[in-house]
Amino acid sequence: MNQADPQSGIKARVIGVIHTPFAEPAGTPIQAVYGKDIEGRVLLYDPYAAALDDIDGFDRLWLIYWMDRVSGFKPRVLPYRDTKEHGLFATRSPARPNPIGMSAVRLIRRMGAELHVADMDILDGTPLLDIKPYVPSFDSYPGCRAGWFDTCAVDRRVADTRFHEPGSGDHRVQG
Amino acid sequence: MNQADPQSGIKARVIGVIHTPFAEPAGTPIQAVYGKDIEGRVLLYDPYAAALDDIDGFDRLWLIYWMDRVSGFKPRVLPYRDTKEHGLFATRSPARPNPIGMSAVRLIRRMGAELHVADMDILDGTPLLDIKPYVPSFDSYPGCRAGWFDTCAVDRRVADTRFHEPGSGDHRVQG
Repeated sequence: MNQADPQSGIKARVIGVIHTPFAEPAGTPIQAVYGKDIEGRVLLYDPYAAALDDIDGFDRLWLIYWMDRVSGFKPRVLPYRDTKEHGLFATRSPARPNPIGMSAVRLIRRMGAELHVADMDILDGTPLLDIKPYVPSFDSYPGCRAGWFDTCAVDRRVADTRFHEPGSGDHRVQG
Repeated sequence: MNQADPQSGIKARVIGVIHTPFAEPAGTPIQAVYGKDIEGRVLLYDPYAAALDDIDGFDRLWLIYWMDRVSGFKPRVLPYRDTKEHGLFATRSPARPNPIGMSAVRLIRRMGAELHVADMDILDGTPLLDIKPYVPSFDSYPGCRAGWFDTCAVDRRVADTRFHEPGSGDHRVQG
């Protein structure tokens, strides 16, 4: 019953929406670290706002979201920061089989059902799936080898349109 | 069209399965850091195996998965490592509105469609949603304040059954 199989699907809920200054992929930072101090808002829908209690003590939060405007999955991609193709799972490219994004954003303030955050690398209107507190003892591994990122050929910090070709996406939120 | 609303749902794909020594929640490590050196395997289904190319150069990977056996969402929970309730989003408790788990596991070896990994905190048979390379410059924030975790009252490292009550889950993989 609980065994996964390739034909199965999972139904996730949209629990809120992320508002940022970025209406279009081109020019949007490709990682939170490159969107430093750019501010945004996270609005939680009912009944999820009460679950934000005690979040104020955390410097950073993981936002987990559905990148609903990216194009479809390809096994190999040319990532933003290299001149060579790599396997998709060796990149942070958004055009994944499940376009789940995760950003470690800085928490400025909670106001009721809304979070004021900074370090935005997310498109405006992106559907929210989860929020987790950033806990350094669980999440921080400063010394790891990071494959081709350690010698990456291109110091690119914002997106272009390569993963957001119009009409090629199949990741829209379903009604 | 792309705006999220509370009635909408998202259909995610199961892209593989995670095999670990943990058949039951009780006794399973609650974080990868507490499952140190415990080994497991990640099996990618077709057509996703080709997307693993170049993953060998990374010390760690984020596994993103669907915790299909947890019980339903409650806004406030008593987490494993405290004696006080907290808002769910201020905890790493698995019983989330979307039970999405993320674990920074250690990559031992890739063999075709299979990854041999260590630092397991995941139940056997858990459906896989995504794999991302761990990149310290994106993911590592060693100095952050972590709210109640910084003074947590209970040094618990393995799960019990509190978030996995039989019959209360609604997160099973749908056929």
